[in-house]
Amino acid sequence: MLLKNAGKNGNHQYKYQQIYKGIKEQILEGDLQTNEKLPSKRKLASQLRVSVNSVTNAYEQLLAEGYIYSIERKGYYVEQITKFTDKDLTSRKLPDDLKEQTSDKEGWLSFSHMTSDISKFPFDTWIKSKQKAISNHKTELSEIANSQGPYLVRKTISRLIKLNRGVICEPEQIVIGSGTQLLIQQLMNTLQSTSDIDTVIAIENPGYSRFYNLLKKMNLDVKPIQLNKDGIDIKKVESSGAKFVIVTPSHQFPTGKIMPISRRIELLNWTSQSTNRYIIEDDYDSEFKYKTDNIPSLQSLDRSNRVIYTGTFSKTLLPSFRISYMVLPSDLLKVYKKQNADLIHSSNTLSLYTLHYFIEDGEYGKHLKKMNNHYEVKRKVLIEKLRNRFGTRIHIEDVPAGLHFFATFQTKKSYSEIEERAEMNKLEVYTLKRFLLTNERDNENEKSLVIGFASIEVEKMEEAVERLYQIISN
Amino acid sequence: MLLKNAGKNGNHQYKYQQIYKGIKEQILEGDLQTNEKLPSKRKLASQLRVSVNSVTNAYEQLLAEGYIYSIERKGYYVEQITKFTDKDLTSRKLPDDLKEQTSDKEGWLSFSHMTSDISKFPFDTWIKSKQKAISNHKTELSEIANSQGPYLVRKTISRLIKLNRGVICEPEQIVIGSGTQLLIQQLMNTLQSTSDIDTVIAIENPGYSRFYNLLKKMNLDVKPIQLNKDGIDIKKVESSGAKFVIVTPSHQFPTGKIMPISRRIELLNWTSQSTNRYIIEDDYDSEFKYKTDNIPSLQSLDRSNRVIYTGTFSKTLLPSFRISYMVLPSDLLKVYKKQNADLIHSSNTLSLYTLHYFIEDGEYGKHLKKMNNHYEVKRKVLIEKLRNRFGTRIHIEDVPAGLHFFATFQTKKSYSEIEERAEMNKLEVYTLKRFLLTNERDNENEKSLVIGFASIEVEKMEEAVERLYQIISN
Repeated sequence: MLLKNAGKNGNHQYKYQQIYKGIKEQILEGDLQTNEKLPSKRKLASQLRVSVNSVTNAYEQLLAEGYIYSIERKGYYVEQITKFTDKDLTSRKLPDDLKEQTSDKEGWLSFSHMTSDISKFPFDTWIKSKQKAISNHKTELSEIANSQGPYLVRKTISRLIKLNRGVICEPEQIVIGSGTQLLIQQLMNTLQSTSDIDTVIAIENPGYSRFYNLLKKMNLDVKPIQLNKDGIDIKKVESSGAKFVIVTPSHQFPTGKIMPISRRIELLNWTSQSTNRYIIEDDYDSEFKYKTDNIPSLQSLDRSNRVIYTGTFSKTLLPSFRISYMVLPSDLLKVYKKQNADLIHSSNTLSLYTLHYFIEDGEYGKHLKKMNNHYEVKRKVLIEKLRNRFGTRIHIEDVPAGLHFFATFQTKKSYSEIEERAEMNKLEVYTLKRFLLTNERDNENEKSLVIGFASIEVEKMEEAVERLYQIISN
Repeated sequence: MLLKNAGKNGNHQYKYQQIYKGIKEQILEGDLQTNEKLPSKRKLASQLRVSVNSVTNAYEQLLAEGYIYSIERKGYYVEQITKFTDKDLTSRKLPDDLKEQTSDKEGWLSFSHMTSDISKFPFDTWIKSKQKAISNHKTELSEIANSQGPYLVRKTISRLIKLNRGVICEPEQIVIGSGTQLLIQQLMNTLQSTSDIDTVIAIENPGYSRFYNLLKKMNLDVKPIQLNKDGIDIKKVESSGAKFVIVTPSHQFPTGKIMPISRRIELLNWTSQSTNRYIIEDDYDSEFKYKTDNIPSLQSLDRSNRVIYTGTFSKTLLPSFRISYMVLPSDLLKVYKKQNADLIHSSNTLSLYTLHYFIEDGEYGKHLKKMNNHYEVKRKVLIEKLRNRFGTRIHIEDVPAGLHFFATFQTKKSYSEIEERAEMNKLEVYTLKRFLLTNERDNENEKSLVIGFASIEVEKMEEAVERLYQIISN
């Protein structure tokens, strides 16, 4: 008998599945033999007291999955089924060390430099731009986009960065992607796989450690280069043998310094001294300058097409949107296009068209202006509160730019002590240690922190500063 | 005289910028010498008949950018500025061969397999889910997400694929990303950089050529493996020395075949015969089955944790959303997590939370059901029309699944002839040639096409079929 209890109750869907499962198991267990004939649909239906339809569906499903075969006008037969070599199922239970702890952020305050202030984000306007994007770009949304992102959006970005950052480029040179890191990784991957471009890469130290780690994991030869007073040390870049150098001239990460014009020119001159030298300008938060105008990008000064400019909307909009872009000089663009013809664009096209209307309708400019004012106040209040609490025991690099500043505290505590105590006091802080790419001896009497002020509410600053004081000074 | 015409007219912003630009140029040109003292703010203001404020702003900007320095109570002096070694600007004009042609799609019809039918997409409901996401996840949206994607969303996906595809996994094993390609690339990159896992990779031929090209560009050792009646040839996989094999068992791309249970078990047995062998199951359009139920995933049969399952929302929602995921067996998860600790998640978090509510509120299920019915009709109509027009000169692999089918036409025309004529007749078609990963001699008497039916409107099918007939048969 094929099936014991099918058809007793339940609806058609249920009955058919029971029949299907029952036969499937018997085939896998070997209870039904290869080439054994199954009862006719009519016969099985009457045996099980179900409709012929239920049996037909079950047989069709078994046929589709290859458990049985049919011979026209003769009936259904069991296929020859391979046996599993692994008799038993290996446990599918996830080992404990791979279980994720859901972190409880209740009561925490944060000086993270990686957030933005969502309380001011104009979601309503954003949704309006999105609706515009939906009604105007139906065809584009049903397809895969150009691998560099939709041309229209690249055109809008090229205009925007010309205006705000002095970047000189055509839409063709822009590659949109879901993060600066990802874009640079993609570029480096591309260059690595074409043998004729050397990819030794210099990076600021202290610097963006996350990026440093990623590049190292790609097996790239990455050289951390000490900063001096005016930024990355050109002589050391020179002697490192690097062909690429990643810099943050508008607001050095993490120290916050602005690279002066002379160092910029020196850096550009460095590219002229040998072929295939490039600067990657990571312009991650240049839109925020509080006492001066925007400072023109390095790319705007470039005379020999040697700057790869990268920008992002993570700071000006939201980091969770994942919209960044890079601007490639034409020689690299050529290589990139050739190697990445098959690459599928990674950003959500709907978000990109939304961004397009958001910019075009002036909402982006409005938002940026509002946030500049908002962050300027936040920054000022926080610095004041820190100075009030720490007095002479704090030194702040007071560069009025970006969404974080660099502060040095007089303390005998070690970095790991500070990090542990921050954890205990529920304060998210990032110490300089995290951004040092080489092992150096810590200064015994002072420690530096990167203090982000974007997400912390003004009303909570007092409390956060107090916690910091307890962590560092007590 | 520092500046000739500043201050004559215009507002403060304009005046300050003219002063700033004038001085900057004179410094760069060497008209102002290193250490030369600038006039006092008051003096320059009266000279130019502008407010002191305008001069102050200009000096502040020059100071911030490093063109001048100040000595307290003495005044402002010109910095020593490095000279550009490149005297002239290299042309920044984009070479003509890098210019993009904006393609005019007016009047075109498409049998593309890469689109989805946007006319049925419930944007209103999607926006509602988005609004829910915005109000419930403010904190998460202001931050960078977990590198595998938000836990909540992974949990929802794990439940969904358990239900629909029989996939057995924990949310911890899911990595969300903006495309299956990207995810597999990331995984392979990870494994490449850890020396102990061999990454020779077998791929179905004919198969997903775009992916094949990408993997080759990564310098991976990729082996195209001929299909036979039941799918990828296991003996050839065995002899290729591959450690990974990418398959599309639910609906082979491009031939459309469903891999029968025996071949599935053989494939799983292949992994048991040696350590570190893995199957990548690309389940790209398995949600669409028209005459049978869903066919359980290969992963659901896996007894030894050797299947990497990948899925996407490109077919069920929209390809432009770029939401895909992979499910890693625990040993690979361990390596992946370790190597990618610094990776920033690539998907738009807002879209992911939107997806979460869209699924949780039952909208996804509803949409899927609607689209299954809709596509079933479209598929049927198109097949009918093709059979009517081509008669005995067409053979269609009639597997009622997915968003495309495989059709073979009797014709003496070559593939390139067909492609050229399609271009002329404004019909987007994809020939088998495109998906053949090795050079074989074409069959002289027949040619195969992959025919997608998702985006073409039913009313346009008659016309599209007629164009196809003109292309192939005339």
